[in-house]
Amino acid sequence: MRDRIKASFARQSMIQTFGATLDAIEPGLVTISAPILPGSRQQQGFAHAALTFGLGDSAAGYAALTTLPEDQEVVTAEIKINLTAPAIGDRLIAKGRVIKPGRRLIVVSAEVFALKDGSETLVAVLQGTMVPVKL
Amino acid sequence: MRDRIKASFARQSMIQTFGATLDAIEPGLVTISAPILPGSRQQQGFAHAALTFGLGDSAAGYAALTTLPEDQEVVTAEIKINLTAPAIGDRLIAKGRVIKPGRRLIVVSAEVFALKDGSETLVAVLQGTMVPVKL
Amino acid sequence: MRDRIKASFARQSMIQTFGATLDAIEPGLVTISAPILPGSRQQQGFAHAALTFGLGDSAAGYAALTTLPEDQEVVTAEIKINLTAPAIGDRLIAKGRVIKPGRRLIVVSAEVFALKDGSETLVAVLQGTMVPVKL
Amino acid sequence: MRDRIKASFARQSMIQTFGATLDAIEPGLVTISAPILPGSRQQQGFAHAALTFGLGDSAAGYAALTTLPEDQEVVTAEIKINLTAPAIGDRLIAKGRVIKPGRRLIVVSAEVFALKDGSETLVAVLQGTMVPVKL
Repeated sequence: MRDRIKASFARQSMIQTFGATLDAIEPGLVTISAPILPGSRQQQGFAHAALTFGLGDSAAGYAALTTLPEDQEVVTAEIKINLTAPAIGDRLIAKGRVIKPGRRLIVVSAEVFALKDGSETLVAVLQGTMVPVKL
Repeated sequence: MRDRIKASFARQSMIQTFGATLDAIEPGLVTISAPILPGSRQQQGFAHAALTFGLGDSAAGYAALTTLPEDQEVVTAEIKINLTAPAIGDRLIAKGRVIKPGRRLIVVSAEVFALKDGSETLVAVLQGTMVPVKL
Repeated sequence: MRDRIKASFARQSMIQTFGATLDAIEPGLVTISAPILPGSRQQQGFAHAALTFGLGDSAAGYAALTTLPEDQEVVTAEIKINLTAPAIGDRLIAKGRVIKPGRRLIVVSAEVFALKDGSETLVAVLQGTMVPVKL
Repeated sequence: MRDRIKASFARQSMIQTFGATLDAIEPGLVTISAPILPGSRQQQGFAHAALTFGLGDSAAGYAALTTLPEDQEVVTAEIKINLTAPAIGDRLIAKGRVIKPGRRLIVVSAEVFALKDGSETLVAVLQGTMVPVKL
């Protein structure tokens, strides 16, 4: 499972553009993080919502993938993000979680934190639906 | 209004990372597009959902900004994306629209299309809430 | 199709509690309305969000059902509602629409209007996902 | 706080139509439940999504209200529901929670459980935004 997720992760060029890393993989729980690069910012210099979203969506998607057999991938059907604070800091950390596994639909959530001077601030919560697809 | 939006757009480094351009600005309606760059892809080579989301969110946000006085910016409070087809093609085009203007909250939507060989396919719809903030 | 939808509608006791009626059925488009009954209100006397949601969700669900073969039903996987104005008036009218049909997932939207003294005000927009299920 | 919430609750006629009760009020956490009445059902006899939504939205809204001064009410700006299982049972229990308090926006979530033969099944998760309004 771990190898499969690492391989899928490595094939996403956007993940490399973001400089993201896969930090923890457990059944139903995946953590991804990325620096807030000079090229990942919005107009005030904070992390762009596309980065916050991308990390949260990926963490939730890979959390879903941990619940599936090896011949399946997941795609995001829909996901909603509430932004709870400006994403100020050095790094974003996204923690994805499976709320309800399933063969047809997997309900997931994610929390995204900004790390600044060693302390974490919640900057976003996501709730969505992943769909298993045969490879 | 047009100059203000162009200036805000130019200050977002992520927008430059994505190679996005501001294609049309009308009251309550903004169109943004971007190529699907080699560095903007998911594991199957299609546009990454972070790109689709980023363009849709930005188009919706700037559509909201067209309804506000000059001393205000907008921030996304929340937005939801339903992905309707794989984002296959050369370019994504996001069309943002104001559904309900307001002083405290602005309800917005966006459609994102993938352009391939001259024809557009709907790849995502978004619905969300923008919040005006004083500069 | 029309008879199937009417039969499904009649079997929902909540629909009768709300006093809702099925006003129009076309492929991909269904309109449902209901009076704002004395028992359907929130603390200020306006229509309760549960009524607004229930009508919007049902209109969207039946719009999805019009795209399916006769041996299938739909269930709501998820739906999001943005409330755009207080639901003040005599009657709510919900117009559901299919955005993207599909065999596994159907993306839908709905608009809900409050009718007061002959004029309609948009009170909510919904965006969601319906799932076909075999009967 | 407790009295204020109870008074607001009692003024909602829909809550009485649903037979809902206010079961627990703590800062940032409110529990509401209701029987699945004969008049609250969908076509298969399970709880209607309007009931599930109404309880989840109310629990989340009252959780938000616990964080506000006495001269304020809340209204739902937007909320999204993912339905995770059919709502089969005798009673629905909704647990609302504040994720991020605020003066302009309050981010909330709720879980809804169906109670059947003494055991609880998660039937829905909600994530949304409440807005404080002066009375």
